[in-house]
Amino acid sequence: MNDRFLRACRRETVDRTPVWIMRQAGRYLPEYRDLRKRVDFLDLCRTPDLAAEATLQPLQRFPLDAAILFSDILLPLDAFGIPMTFSPGPKIAEPVRTRAQVDSLVARPAAEAVPFVAEAIRMVRRDLGDRAPLIGFCGAPFTLAAYLVQGEGKEGFGAVKQLMFREPATLEALLEKLSVAMSDYLRLQIQAGAQAVQIFDSWAGILGLADYERFALPFVKSIVASVRDLNVPVIYFVNGGPHLIEAASRAGSDVLGVCWRTPLDQVAARVRPTLALQGNLDPHVLFADAAVIRGRVSGILDSVAGRPGHIMNLGHGILPETPIESVKTMIETVQAYPVMSAAHA
Amino acid sequence: MNDRFLRACRRETVDRTPVWIMRQAGRYLPEYRDLRKRVDFLDLCRTPDLAAEATLQPLQRFPLDAAILFSDILLPLDAFGIPMTFSPGPKIAEPVRTRAQVDSLVARPAAEAVPFVAEAIRMVRRDLGDRAPLIGFCGAPFTLAAYLVQGEGKEGFGAVKQLMFREPATLEALLEKLSVAMSDYLRLQIQAGAQAVQIFDSWAGILGLADYERFALPFVKSIVASVRDLNVPVIYFVNGGPHLIEAASRAGSDVLGVCWRTPLDQVAARVRPTLALQGNLDPHVLFADAAVIRGRVSGILDSVAGRPGHIMNLGHGILPETPIESVKTMIETVQAYPVMSAAHA
Repeated sequence: MNDRFLRACRRETVDRTPVWIMRQAGRYLPEYRDLRKRVDFLDLCRTPDLAAEATLQPLQRFPLDAAILFSDILLPLDAFGIPMTFSPGPKIAEPVRTRAQVDSLVARPAAEAVPFVAEAIRMVRRDLGDRAPLIGFCGAPFTLAAYLVQGEGKEGFGAVKQLMFREPATLEALLEKLSVAMSDYLRLQIQAGAQAVQIFDSWAGILGLADYERFALPFVKSIVASVRDLNVPVIYFVNGGPHLIEAASRAGSDVLGVCWRTPLDQVAARVRPTLALQGNLDPHVLFADAAVIRGRVSGILDSVAGRPGHIMNLGHGILPETPIESVKTMIETVQAYPVMSAAHA
Repeated sequence: MNDRFLRACRRETVDRTPVWIMRQAGRYLPEYRDLRKRVDFLDLCRTPDLAAEATLQPLQRFPLDAAILFSDILLPLDAFGIPMTFSPGPKIAEPVRTRAQVDSLVARPAAEAVPFVAEAIRMVRRDLGDRAPLIGFCGAPFTLAAYLVQGEGKEGFGAVKQLMFREPATLEALLEKLSVAMSDYLRLQIQAGAQAVQIFDSWAGILGLADYERFALPFVKSIVASVRDLNVPVIYFVNGGPHLIEAASRAGSDVLGVCWRTPLDQVAARVRPTLALQGNLDPHVLFADAAVIRGRVSGILDSVAGRPGHIMNLGHGILPETPIESVKTMIETVQAYPVMSAAHA
């Protein structure tokens, strides 16, 4: 069993740093683009054997230390019966902006609303065998609310911030419902076989610290607490939040994933030593030549060498135009890096 | 003469905290929208009496402590003869992406390329009289390069980052040329009558710290140094850069402008005490009711009370849909705030 990813999440000794890549099943892979020629994005997510196929594609090509379920953070909003389309970004026909809309949201159990996710997870686990563990995931409530209130992805996500300042109680009611639904959704994934879970807070960084502490952090905390009894590592990834690192480190997760903005040794100095770290190569580095990639990857590994609990990853999702060769170079650099065991650190 | 803005830039005692608003001459003002019905954006910028009119509009309506020239950070790129349009975002027909393109860029003197800017400044100064000082401005080289390489505004500005990792020397050559041209452009503005200047680094926040220190900071430093002999305060505004605060504080500016993400007392703790601070109300707060606005504005004033050198502002440009009433509330709150003189601090 390749368990170095799970061991690193728990800050146990590893033979080398594990590596996986956010959005590793995605458009930079020709085999994924082929799959998408045959099937629409939402259908792909909702068809267990196809979602399983997409999940496994990067593992066939690269010796990655973890798989991550192919899906989208907005997909479980099916549980609320909120219609949406992807073209390619998400589009929600009726953005949620009023108290009445929030009050009318009732989540069906994830097991009923998105049974295909559990089924895809079971299929992936069967096919993966001992090669690598499988990560499940969900969006953090504030990030999901940013999409639901805006109705689409939009720089700055002004609509959710307007709601936050105008009607904070309405936003809190929405966040509470999302938090409960995401807890249920992660439990479904873990019970179906996900061996770790990641909570993506892609847009928390648009919040000032005090607003993050009120409108984002508590709802993540409650998700983390709600899956604790299932005993799998929880990763909390905050994008664009260099000002939120200390606060985010208090979410209760085992691992904090950070974007490329803050050097990992500085992150390490700002969080408790018992928090594992994930990241944080700038995804654009993968457009550079091999020597630059090797240098940057080694630099990150150097910066936390001797600190137990590091999972190598990008600082954000891999970009669609990324050359395959660069991904190989990144992974090979991690594999070749001489690791001190924690015992010697 | 209302000089509390200039005094605050220099950390001298003031009767109260000065206040102005980034993009205060803009679309949230009905009189500006009326002006724009008559004239296209670029023509407005290029016609001295109209640019002066737009500059003065917010001062007629609100007791602001500074005016800022109505223009756009991309406008002085006219000096390089780079054709662009605005609709409403900037669009550059031929993005600058190769060494050959960079090498072929030759900047005419700003006084020849954009004489209308100097003329607008002279007109504004004449009309402003003693009401308030006038701020000139330019874009920081990295931010300008982000647009020039991308060809338009785009979340993440991937093109400039790809160039940075692939061909750092090409990007540095471009930054160097932009830095020289912006120095010339600020000198033109100051010599025409601008009493302070602000350098806008709207996109520096997409850089990790080490890349910021190589590709952004040195070029800002050199602009600041190049206008020092003209003896006007220099404000350096970095958007979305909570991880860059210490580094940005070393640019040599008199004032550091920061976005809303980091509380000002935390900013103060991370920079030299001789650096004045500008900001940093979240622009979305202006969609809240008056009590919330008053509370947030007071909170910011409280957080740096007793630290000489604070200029109240938003943490980013005012949004087009902002209610006029909210702007009044913000300014009145600043005016009513009891200031301790620096002598008592």
